[in-house]
Parts: sequence; structure tokens; C-alpha cells
Amino acid sequence: MASDTQISSAPLSGMRDFTPYEVQLRDWATQKITQTYEKYGFTKIETPCLENLALLKRGEGGENLQLIFEVVKRGDKLEKVLSQAHAQNAKVDRNQLTDMGLRFDLTVPLVRFYCQNQGTLPTPFKAIQIGSVWRAESAQQGRFRQFTQCDIDIFGVKNELAEIELLGATAEALTNLAFDGFTIYVNDRRLLANIAAHCGFAEERFDNVFIALDKLDKIGLEGVKTELAGEGHPESAIANLMSLLVSLSNESANQLDVIAERVSPAPDVVQGIRNIIEIVGSQANGKYSVKYEPSLVRGMGYYTGPIFEIKYPGYNYSVAGGGRYDKMVGKMSGRDVPACGFSIGFERIIGILQDKNIQPETQYQKLAFIYDADRDDIAKVAQAAATLRERGFAVVSQARKKDMKKQIDQLSNQKITALCIFKGDVQNLEIKPL
Amino acid sequence: MASDTQISSAPLSGMRDFTPYEVQLRDWATQKITQTYEKYGFTKIETPCLENLALLKRGEGGENLQLIFEVVKRGDKLEKVLSQAHAQNAKVDRNQLTDMGLRFDLTVPLVRFYCQNQGTLPTPFKAIQIGSVWRAESAQQGRFRQFTQCDIDIFGVKNELAEIELLGATAEALTNLAFDGFTIYVNDRRLLANIAAHCGFAEERFDNVFIALDKLDKIGLEGVKTELAGEGHPESAIANLMSLLVSLSNESANQLDVIAERVSPAPDVVQGIRNIIEIVGSQANGKYSVKYEPSLVRGMGYYTGPIFEIKYPGYNYSVAGGGRYDKMVGKMSGRDVPACGFSIGFERIIGILQDKNIQPETQYQKLAFIYDADRDDIAKVAQAAATLRERGFAVVSQARKKDMKKQIDQLSNQKITALCIFKGDVQNLEIKPL
Repeated sequence: MASDTQISSAPLSGMRDFTPYEVQLRDWATQKITQTYEKYGFTKIETPCLENLALLKRGEGGENLQLIFEVVKRGDKLEKVLSQAHAQNAKVDRNQLTDMGLRFDLTVPLVRFYCQNQGTLPTPFKAIQIGSVWRAESAQQGRFRQFTQCDIDIFGVKNELAEIELLGATAEALTNLAFDGFTIYVNDRRLLANIAAHCGFAEERFDNVFIALDKLDKIGLEGVKTELAGEGHPESAIANLMSLLVSLSNESANQLDVIAERVSPAPDVVQGIRNIIEIVGSQANGKYSVKYEPSLVRGMGYYTGPIFEIKYPGYNYSVAGGGRYDKMVGKMSGRDVPACGFSIGFERIIGILQDKNIQPETQYQKLAFIYDADRDDIAKVAQAAATLRERGFAVVSQARKKDMKKQIDQLSNQKITALCIFKGDVQNLEIKPL
Repeated sequence: MASDTQISSAPLSGMRDFTPYEVQLRDWATQKITQTYEKYGFTKIETPCLENLALLKRGEGGENLQLIFEVVKRGDKLEKVLSQAHAQNAKVDRNQLTDMGLRFDLTVPLVRFYCQNQGTLPTPFKAIQIGSVWRAESAQQGRFRQFTQCDIDIFGVKNELAEIELLGATAEALTNLAFDGFTIYVNDRRLLANIAAHCGFAEERFDNVFIALDKLDKIGLEGVKTELAGEGHPESAIANLMSLLVSLSNESANQLDVIAERVSPAPDVVQGIRNIIEIVGSQANGKYSVKYEPSLVRGMGYYTGPIFEIKYPGYNYSVAGGGRYDKMVGKMSGRDVPACGFSIGFERIIGILQDKNIQPETQYQKLAFIYDADRDDIAKVAQAAATLRERGFAVVSQARKKDMKKQIDQLSNQKITALCIFKGDVQNLEIKPL
């Protein structure tokens, strides 16, 4: 039989196969997270991986819109596009080729789901989504082209109890995954706008200011100043912002007090941040801390209120992020619904768990049951294996190999911790630890 | 804000959103099945949803190859295809447009995974796969275009202990999902070939004979006879087959004895079927039965030995099916590896569970915690909710609505079975059953 050597057996570039141990860790983490979220009244929903391409592309997905894997039209529909272009001697318009796309996040499908089912969903609607998303990232840079997102979202809650529950639930989920010592950073888009207005930046360029501010922890005060100047913002506004940031960097200062005093933001916005920080902090039991962070921006343009992210010591990326987006449902349905969400960076969490060499709990002890395929009666072998399963083992039956010592040595790679070598007697099964 | 009415919020045709209750049932079934399979020494693996289109198309996927959702090439690669065709005034070749496809089953990716990782995988390698597959079926006929498959496969076991474990594990999984009274039907492709040869059919047309035989339970003896005649098979061969089938339909006959006597098949093939039936049957504890079924064929061309499927009373489709396919790995890697697999029809199982109104077990009792958003202190509300969670409830906090009676009436739709109305005192939380 000819082997088909021209087709690689490797997964596609940027995509991954997961071996049993990897799946075990991912499933364990998924289950811990889900169980925690359920305690907070969230329930899981699922949407299809493929969505209408027009829906995906109309969204506020920013640069992700460039990274959609698009599905080519089927059958006659595609034929028509190709034939027409050929008949007219025109180049085929690539936008005419496709009609579906793989989702690039879980937020666009969630909003569609909510609009579709709004009449029957409870208020508040608290959703868990854990699923794959796809982005045609440059695989050369080691980015994954299929990865798991893990989101919770609350629709229908105006007050900051929503944020408090999102943060509390996510912090508890991380704690249950043996993370501690992490920090939750909180800010508010409205406060950022207040600050930018107060400093004298032009309102239509606020987002550009935020992009520079967002880099504060990487490029420092001088870096932000240089970037803002390079972008052509008014010198006076830049000077005002620098002055404020210097005051905020004073370690003894209560940053929110400084801002409340100097910027005069809407008092309820400041009180909202204070509530979130104090209340979530009071539930931390010393396992994590909650802080206001004036330079926290979060990339997506759709946030309308509090924003937050979590950092874990020793890792310079955030392990979770989210915020309030009260205008997104309205853009689809015509009627605004208060909404906020928090997303765990699932692949990052798994990477840290692997760094920490965390061993997921398993339900059964794994036992190797070795029989002699030439001599043993197969009915007795099957009966013995059944007996071992009844005793609570996960039983891996295998025929005895010539070099049984080597065979046994290899069992530990499979996380097998017990051994039973069949002696032909079903009543008498000797189990040894490995 | 303008609403975007031209884009529907419904999922794409043939695709489904799953509501919380549906996901709960699906997750519960998935977990029960996984736990059972783990007891039999299987471990979960995962592969990407996208595969190289050339790999998908070279397979033995039969008509599924026509149903692949294909992903259009990205960026310059696509541009080149379109520009070249235009420059040459040629119609674009649709095969040039795409390079990846969504998997249509879990077997093609599994074999690729096995070939890729063969060096590090244990022998036997026993895989669980539960995941989505996609087929561009006619959505008009109510077929799903994304659905879940649930497979176990064993690589590296030549003897029928593999089949015994596949059948035993799947039967136990179904039993754990509250199925009983089902029947496992067993046959062997080699025995089918022996019968066809004995009757005098031409070997190159055996598959055509099997297609007719497969319909025996739907169209009866006369129907099979008519179909075989219409296909131009020799009259004498048809007469021989009919005579054999009549003997087999004699209720007092042991069908395998009849075939052993009249067809003289390879004794080890018959003994293999007998072993499978007897040993799996001995583990059934009256919950299911195991039978030889001479007209069982299974559609796919790649089976090489025992084949099997499970039927549940009251449903005229099989709820699980599989068989041995010893030649498939060799077609990819050049070296044959014994392999067999069993696939639960996950969507069918879920449909039956819904028909039976099975309620999945849940970890926490769900409690509605109603507070007054205008009057209550948000810190106290959060603290009370935390206390209720500590007491073991899954807590759904919600602001009191004007018509609280109506609000409470609607809670049972969410499977909420307990209620706590906040009176402002965190120390004194009164919980009522609903």
C-alpha cells in the first residue's frame, strides 16, 4: 500500500493537537472555572462556531476583522460568482467568494444570541461561554490560530453589583486553580474621558490619548509624553496630564482622592470604582488585591464604564480582562441593554499552570492490567478487567510484550500508578503500586 | 442609534444556539460518557477543527467529501489566484481558492494525530474524542450543519479484546445515561464477504450486494431480492442468498451455527463474533442484549473486521456504531496498525434524553437573592450573596422589580428552587423553598 508522504501529519501551522495530559489539564481548569461561575449564578450557553460574515464584519472587532477565517460559498452560489466574473472579463471580487466566517471572539456571538433570545431569557442574564475562536494570526510569531476563550457576561444590571460579581467570581475561579497573589486593576472609561477633557485634549482624539497612556507601565512617563507629542496633541494638555500622572505616582497619595480633587469627575463614577475596589477587596481573604489603576485603558473601543484586568506576579501580560459595554446590544437590536463581561485568558492560564507543574485531580487511579494474548482465555481477561474497574480503577488492559520489564517501565509516562499481572485466576488479582 | 435590521440575529441556517438548559444536559451527558470511558482506560485527545483540505479530501469519507466547509486562502495567496486567472482571461478554478477545511468527522483527524505522535503514544493507544464536526448538509431537511461526535478508538490491539472493551464501555456509558433495554448488533465484514462469495456474487461487486442487504430490515426479503436483480447480479447468487436468509430468519435457528455450517467461513472469524457476543453479553446484567445480525453492514468502506451498532427501542435509527479498520493508518503512514472504534450518535442520544425529559444532576441548588437596588447598601448586598454562596447555593442576585410576585413566578423557569429576599440584615437571611 502506497504511503501518502506528500501530506504532512502535523496539525496546520498555528494550530495544535492536544495530548491526553494536556486535555486533562484543560478540562480540569474548565471544570473548576465553570463550577465557580455556577456558584455565582452564571449558566453556560453555546453558539455555533460559524457566523454570518456580515455580522462578524460589522462589529467592533478592530483589527480582528482582518483575521477572520472565511468560508467559501458552496455549490451553485460560488459557481455563479466565478462564471459571472469570467463572462464579464472582470477580476473576481474576493468579497463575493465567502458568506460565513469562523468567530474571532465570543462577544459578537453572545450579543447576537442575546438579541435573538431576549424574549425568553431571564433578567439578569448571566452567561458563561467557554469555546474555541479562530484568528488568522501570523503563525511565525508563535501565535495560535485556534484558541480557547473563557468569558462571563451579565446583561440587564445597571449598578456595579454586576462588576462586583464578575470580579469576585473570576478571582475565586483563579484561586480555585491555585493562583494567588494576583492583582485586579480597575479603572473607568468615563473617568479616563474626564481626565482627558480636564487636561484639555480634543474629545475626538481621546482614543489616541488613551493608546499612549495604556503604555505607561512599558514606556514610562517620558515615553508617554514623547508619544503624545509625536501625535500632535496640544503641549498644554500633555503638560497637564504629566503633572497629574506625577501626582498619582506619589506613593503616599490616594490616587482616587487626587483625581477627585484635581479633575472633578462625576462623583458617582468615582464612588462606583471605590465600591468595586472595597467590596471585592473585602472578599479577597488576603489571596489577591484590588487596586485603582489610572493608566488602565483596555484596547476595545466598545467599553462605556468600569474596565478591569488581572495580573499575576512574574508574568507581564494580563490573565483576565473586561469591562462594561452598555451600548453594544443597542447597536444590534436598537434598544440599549446594560452589559458587562470578564474574560479569562484561558491559554495564558493553562501556560502558567504548566509552568507551575500543576497536576489535575483525576477521578480514578490508573491501573495497567497485563495479560498474555497467546495463553490467556479472553473471557477471563475481560472478566478480570471488569472486576478491577468495579474496584474503582481506570483499567488499561494490554497484552504482555516480550520485554515486560521495559513495558512496565514505560507505564509511568502514562500516569499509571498501579499494576496487575494476570495469572489466569479471576478470583485472585494481585495489585501492586507502581 | 440606528439598528442594523438587515442582519438577522438567528444562527446560520442548520446551526444551533444552545440555551443554558440544553448546555447543561449536553455537558452532563458528555461528563457521564467521559467518566465511563476513563474507567476503561481511555483518555481524551483534541485536534484542531481546521485541517489541511488535501488531507480531508484524500480520505475515505465517501459522500462527506462533498460536504466540507472550505476556508478561502488569506491575503496575497488568494490575490494571486484571482489576478492570474484575470490576466489569463480564464475562469477561476474553485479548487485553487481554498486550502483548509472544517473537519467532517473525528476519524480523519485521529488517524493524522496517531501518525504524527506514534513515537510517543503508548500501545495500546485508547482515545476519547468529543467534538464538533461540520457538514454542509441541506439545512432544509432539518439536518444540522454543526454537530457533536463522540468517539472512542483503540490502536494497537489485534484481538477482539478491543471490540469487547469498546462495546462494554459504550454500553456502560449508555446505561449511566439511564438507557436500558437496548440491543448491540454485531457482524463482521469478513463474514459478509464469505457469504457473498459462497452465494456466488462477483467479488468486485460485494459492496453493491452489501448496500442491498443493509436495507433488509426496511424493505424485507423481497425488497432485497428485487434490488439485487435490478442491479444485475446473477440469478443463482440471489437465489442462494435468499435461501440462506430464509434459513437465518427461522427463529429457532442459531444463526451463527447455520452460517458456519452452510457457508464454511474462517472458523476464527466466527469464534471472534461468538466471543464478543458472549463476553459483552455476560457483563450486561440484563440491562441490554448482544446479538449477531447477518444484515448489519455499516456504510463506510474502510471496515475490515467486526462491525457493530446499537439500537434503542422505539427509535428506528442506531444510537451508536463502529467497527475495526486495520488498514487506515497504513494508508497514511505506510505501516498498518490494528485499529477499531465506536461512535455514539451524540445528537441522537441528547434527543432521546430530551424525549425522556431526563433532568441532569446539578452541583448546587439554585437560589434567587432579591435586593432593592434603590434602598439597599451594595456592600451589604454583596456580602449577603457571598454568605449564601458559602452555604452552598448557586446565587442569582437580582434587583427587586415593581411586580415582585410576577418576578418570583418566573424564577421556576430558570430551575431556581430557593428564594431569599434581602431585608437589609446580613446576619439574618431567610431562605424559602420555591
